[in-house]
Amino acid sequence: MPGTHPLRVALLGCGVVGTEVARGILANPIDLAARVGAPVELAGIAVRSLDAERDPAIPRELLTTDAETLVDGADVVVEVMGGIEPARTLILRALERGAAVVTANKALLAAGGPELFEAADAAGVDLLYEAAVAGAIPIVRPIRESLAGDHVRRILGIVNGTTNFVLDKMATEGVELDQAVKEAQQLGYAEADPTADVDGYDAAAKAAILASLAFHTRVALADVAREGIRAVTADDVEWAKRTGHVIKLLAVAEVLGPVDDGEISVRVHPALVPADHPLASVRGAFNAVFVEADGAGPLMFYGQGAGGRPTASAVLGDVVSAARRRLTGGKGLRESKDQRFPVLPPEAAVTRFQVRLAIADRPGVLAQVATVLADHGVSIDTVRQTSSHTHSGEGETGAATLVITTHAAREASLAATVDAVARLEPVRQIISVLRVEGA
Amino acid sequence: MPGTHPLRVALLGCGVVGTEVARGILANPIDLAARVGAPVELAGIAVRSLDAERDPAIPRELLTTDAETLVDGADVVVEVMGGIEPARTLILRALERGAAVVTANKALLAAGGPELFEAADAAGVDLLYEAAVAGAIPIVRPIRESLAGDHVRRILGIVNGTTNFVLDKMATEGVELDQAVKEAQQLGYAEADPTADVDGYDAAAKAAILASLAFHTRVALADVAREGIRAVTADDVEWAKRTGHVIKLLAVAEVLGPVDDGEISVRVHPALVPADHPLASVRGAFNAVFVEADGAGPLMFYGQGAGGRPTASAVLGDVVSAARRRLTGGKGLRESKDQRFPVLPPEAAVTRFQVRLAIADRPGVLAQVATVLADHGVSIDTVRQTSSHTHSGEGETGAATLVITTHAAREASLAATVDAVARLEPVRQIISVLRVEGA
Repeated sequence: MPGTHPLRVALLGCGVVGTEVARGILANPIDLAARVGAPVELAGIAVRSLDAERDPAIPRELLTTDAETLVDGADVVVEVMGGIEPARTLILRALERGAAVVTANKALLAAGGPELFEAADAAGVDLLYEAAVAGAIPIVRPIRESLAGDHVRRILGIVNGTTNFVLDKMATEGVELDQAVKEAQQLGYAEADPTADVDGYDAAAKAAILASLAFHTRVALADVAREGIRAVTADDVEWAKRTGHVIKLLAVAEVLGPVDDGEISVRVHPALVPADHPLASVRGAFNAVFVEADGAGPLMFYGQGAGGRPTASAVLGDVVSAARRRLTGGKGLRESKDQRFPVLPPEAAVTRFQVRLAIADRPGVLAQVATVLADHGVSIDTVRQTSSHTHSGEGETGAATLVITTHAAREASLAATVDAVARLEPVRQIISVLRVEGA
Repeated sequence: MPGTHPLRVALLGCGVVGTEVARGILANPIDLAARVGAPVELAGIAVRSLDAERDPAIPRELLTTDAETLVDGADVVVEVMGGIEPARTLILRALERGAAVVTANKALLAAGGPELFEAADAAGVDLLYEAAVAGAIPIVRPIRESLAGDHVRRILGIVNGTTNFVLDKMATEGVELDQAVKEAQQLGYAEADPTADVDGYDAAAKAAILASLAFHTRVALADVAREGIRAVTADDVEWAKRTGHVIKLLAVAEVLGPVDDGEISVRVHPALVPADHPLASVRGAFNAVFVEADGAGPLMFYGQGAGGRPTASAVLGDVVSAARRRLTGGKGLRESKDQRFPVLPPEAAVTRFQVRLAIADRPGVLAQVATVLADHGVSIDTVRQTSSHTHSGEGETGAATLVITTHAAREASLAATVDAVARLEPVRQIISVLRVEGA
């Protein structure tokens, strides 16, 4: 394409993802040029230190510590440095100068998205972030564009590969959480400090982004009720199997009430998923997002949620989109926030529950427990009572295990109900309370 | 939005999909307006007859038989009439007059796509067709945009719900094809004349569209090797299960050789899919598209592939995209056809095969068969030999069943090999030859 001004891409960050983005632009320039309609040039890569050890494919002369100057000369700025600052300031600077921005920074979007979207709207440029949720899986664009003429009712997402790997390991090998986390660390699926994954912070940021997109409402990280997988035991996983479920850490976003005038609930927690649900077969470190929309019905998107190359694939797709728009003209995609649904507090969430109790193994206990549930307006779906001599591992002799699955109930009612059940004389222990999703 | 010129949508066709598109625009105008950024007005609905019986939600005053005049006044033309003419002429007319076009017409795109894309490129407007492949599943936009910075290697798609329903019925109930087709007809999943579905014509049109998108190459319907499911027996389905597979009608599009200088193979045929492959769990009339890309790795998109409301969801998403672009300016998305890979003839396709033979039940037969395969350069992966007295239903006494799964082999070599095997004295019958995909 002689005479066509090359589109200048500034890359901020050169970690695992940044390196793969740079390789993608450098290794195959003809291809990107054909897809965009003009040559695409990697103008430079902003790094903290010029001397860090890097992939030999990264030309040293592209590196700079002067991110501001790099941003100022760019058509498209790709931010893959992570963290809040200086990413936020650099993205705002890019948008104000009229550059399109592509980011993979879920933490920044969940914490400070509105400010960034307003800056993008004001400048009329694209702020694209396909890589911020579920890595390589195209999920942002489908919700933002393909479902723009539909009403999303509910999203159930396995959006954290580390915890899915850990739970899958527990299910297939019967090991406890600590052991599974250790294996994930050895394989590079989990950080030395696994808090962000195990305690659900990473999934919560993604839940906020997905809910904002799906419900055209600004949902902040603080709106997301969050519970990690630390309390999940090998015993829970085994009982899940016995009752026809698998345990998954889910990001849930749903509308309660009328789809055009409802309230939304956004949360992250471990949940029992029926074994025949499409999400149940998502194994290892894979991610999947299940979407229920009024018109489309159920949809699922499945793939790799992390890793340098998969994440770079999503970033490069956005680079092509942003670069094409620079070339062909027109304003960037606006943030859609027309619905402004109120976000419910965590205790108002409505789900089905499975409560597992150790009870005295004698007649009449189930009746007592069922009465307490009825008194609290919590309706029972199924009950399963097992004497300890048929299944081991449930504690003392003379105890039975009672597994109760409820119909949908408010989180607050369920908590009160469980408290009352725990006070019953023949109830030895509330072993676990798990939500059931996807039924 | 006072003072904003409403965007005028012309709807061509008022069948099952058209009715749902009209309802979507009429029932919820505020929502669409918010998503687009301007009011969206249904300018009219072109139909063949004003007097046909219709859904009461369709206002009679919107109906017209003068499609040309309707098209001439529109910003966005939605074509859901199907068939080649007059759809083709009306779409070309719309594009030439600068309107954006949204179509669900896979037959027209597969047969005459290039002409339409050239007209859209020349006018600089959008020609969007998310609904043409796999109904509600966002697959066109993800391949066209999200994967634009990646190299797609292979697509395996369950893109015809009727045949998936039929094969699933055969697998779960052990019935023969005719019976399963009859049930599909009773449930409205299959037409009175099921040829388009059962013989793979519908899937072949979708395969051509998917391959064109994924490989940035024009692939015509005539380039697609096509084999339907008519020859699949209950016995095949049962044997698939025994060997750890399910039979699915797949649309396959793949690159052989280097990803930037290879050849592509596009085909539709029944295939054995390993039971643990994500596609194996796609049940009933659902669709799913499995994509393997160099960077992203494996991805799967799952959902409803047909039906009025699901298809209308995809159409309305495109209407929002096209309307937004009318409002915000800029040229439409161009067809990407930079790669121009040659398309291989059917006999050059490379797949694994499972050949099932009835042989004389005596020592040495396997050695003879294996020698023929070796002589033809076809390499064996697994062999399973079963005497007829352990499994019934394989015909005469004294016969054994031999199931051979090969490594990847050219279609032509395999055909020659099977011919040679059939001529061996102890070989009574070649019971079936099925391709194996997704292993």
